[in-house]
Amino acid sequence: MITALAGGVGAARFLRGLVEIIPQEDLTVIVNTGDDIELHGLYISPDIDIIMYTLAGMVDEGKGWGIRGDTFHCLEMLGRYGCETWFNLGDKDLACHIYRTYLLRKGLTLSEVTEKISKALGLRVNIIPMTNQRFRTIIVTDNGRMHFQEYLVKRRARDRVIHVEFEGVDEANPAPGVLDSILNSDAIIICPSNPIVSIGTILSIRKVKDAIERSEARVVAISPIVGGAPIKGPADKLMRALGYEVSAYGVAEYYRSLIDAIVIDRVDESERLRIESLGIKVAVTDTIMKSLQSKIQLAKFVLDLIRELP
Amino acid sequence: MITALAGGVGAARFLRGLVEIIPQEDLTVIVNTGDDIELHGLYISPDIDIIMYTLAGMVDEGKGWGIRGDTFHCLEMLGRYGCETWFNLGDKDLACHIYRTYLLRKGLTLSEVTEKISKALGLRVNIIPMTNQRFRTIIVTDNGRMHFQEYLVKRRARDRVIHVEFEGVDEANPAPGVLDSILNSDAIIICPSNPIVSIGTILSIRKVKDAIERSEARVVAISPIVGGAPIKGPADKLMRALGYEVSAYGVAEYYRSLIDAIVIDRVDESERLRIESLGIKVAVTDTIMKSLQSKIQLAKFVLDLIRELP
Repeated sequence: MITALAGGVGAARFLRGLVEIIPQEDLTVIVNTGDDIELHGLYISPDIDIIMYTLAGMVDEGKGWGIRGDTFHCLEMLGRYGCETWFNLGDKDLACHIYRTYLLRKGLTLSEVTEKISKALGLRVNIIPMTNQRFRTIIVTDNGRMHFQEYLVKRRARDRVIHVEFEGVDEANPAPGVLDSILNSDAIIICPSNPIVSIGTILSIRKVKDAIERSEARVVAISPIVGGAPIKGPADKLMRALGYEVSAYGVAEYYRSLIDAIVIDRVDESERLRIESLGIKVAVTDTIMKSLQSKIQLAKFVLDLIRELP
Repeated sequence: MITALAGGVGAARFLRGLVEIIPQEDLTVIVNTGDDIELHGLYISPDIDIIMYTLAGMVDEGKGWGIRGDTFHCLEMLGRYGCETWFNLGDKDLACHIYRTYLLRKGLTLSEVTEKISKALGLRVNIIPMTNQRFRTIIVTDNGRMHFQEYLVKRRARDRVIHVEFEGVDEANPAPGVLDSILNSDAIIICPSNPIVSIGTILSIRKVKDAIERSEARVVAISPIVGGAPIKGPADKLMRALGYEVSAYGVAEYYRSLIDAIVIDRVDESERLRIESLGIKVAVTDTIMKSLQSKIQLAKFVLDLIRELP
């Protein structure tokens, strides 16, 4: 049994390879919900959607999110009604948000809704939101406090990040199944996602971090920082703001208390010794996942690494 | 100033012609909300939408409802999630329901929402729902009680109608502006809509019917029954079930206490004397509205008739 901690695009790409080599039933993915947002009265859970669409083979591969070949007719009309349209919502994609919102209003939890939707999409992976409670990642910038999506999508990460806040973190309990999965897995994989706002949110829930520390599972992270920059997204700006070096070493340092090993890219080979000095095993390979083949290769590499760990 | 009582397609076609010959600002349309329905957590107001889309020149002319050239990608996905898809919701159309639902949940009334949406579509006609309260037309059939849309759209009006119930009629107050418009208009036009479930719902609100009776406005109806059958919809089945003759005469009889005159189609000329015996003036013309020209001609005919009334 494997538990993966996941954000959006990077995690989804890695997991897409992983499910080619292990049975879907053996995988539990705990997904960041700090990016969740309500727009036009609809509850949107971007990372869960990216994971589901990617594993269901529906994702727009080029963008990494949304549904391949989707249209944007509804959003155009919403714009005509004066609604904000900076968050791209395709017509097919909207069905997920409409259905989720409908079920949440009926009283189902986000976990229950996620299970229903992922089953409807034919998935057998166990996808769990990190929490069923309200949790919001707020980016404090020189232009004020803003929702993570506002910072990233609306303002294209152009504001200087001063600090990151997790609204609701003190009240947030892990969703049902999160702790069980962590405690009963053979391995925990920290996907190549933004350490601060994708994985950091999950780890900010005290009981989750405690469970990982208590778990006998081997814990492996894949660095999302390659050659001193994130493959996608604003991880560099957020790591820097929080005082972390923007490098594979910085990622290893961030996960220091949790991981047994880290997978870094060949271009970062030179950081090996510094990372090993943190007491973390380092494994070096190609981590850029362009093709399905490269995703599968990385997944195999990670599984082999896990088997080698004591 | 003119007040029109309106259902969906028939009314919208007539009003489309009317706004070509009078300023939009001089027209108030009081619209049936008995057909309103919540689907997938979205509040849908079919008659209001048909009126708005038609007057905004966006309607799918062939069907009489929905938006011209719309796609159905979201609905297809909703079907994949196991949602019922018998009520056709186009992608562009959905924006209206999403925005309306959002505003209603924020606490706006249906009137306020309708005003916002119709203004955004560039309309200057005053479109008012008959009531802002919950009102539901229930069709009692040999197959059980069902929402009007379920009877009409899902089951294609195939069940035998035993009775019609108006849920919420005793509590329903006219929406703001309804009574004022009726009492201050020079003329009230009852559009060629289903007498029972489009106009009958509006008239079932006691204060509305009283206001029409008290009003000094001339009141003219246009028969939706031509040659013994409705132009569209199940008016025949509903009129028959409630003991009305399915004819222009039956329509006149239904509106007997309210109207000064009725416009009937040439094919129903033979009913003139019977209707006149009810004390109602009869005006005969072509009432089938295929082209914009025929809509304008009918509207002119109705305005001329109103001017001739004592």
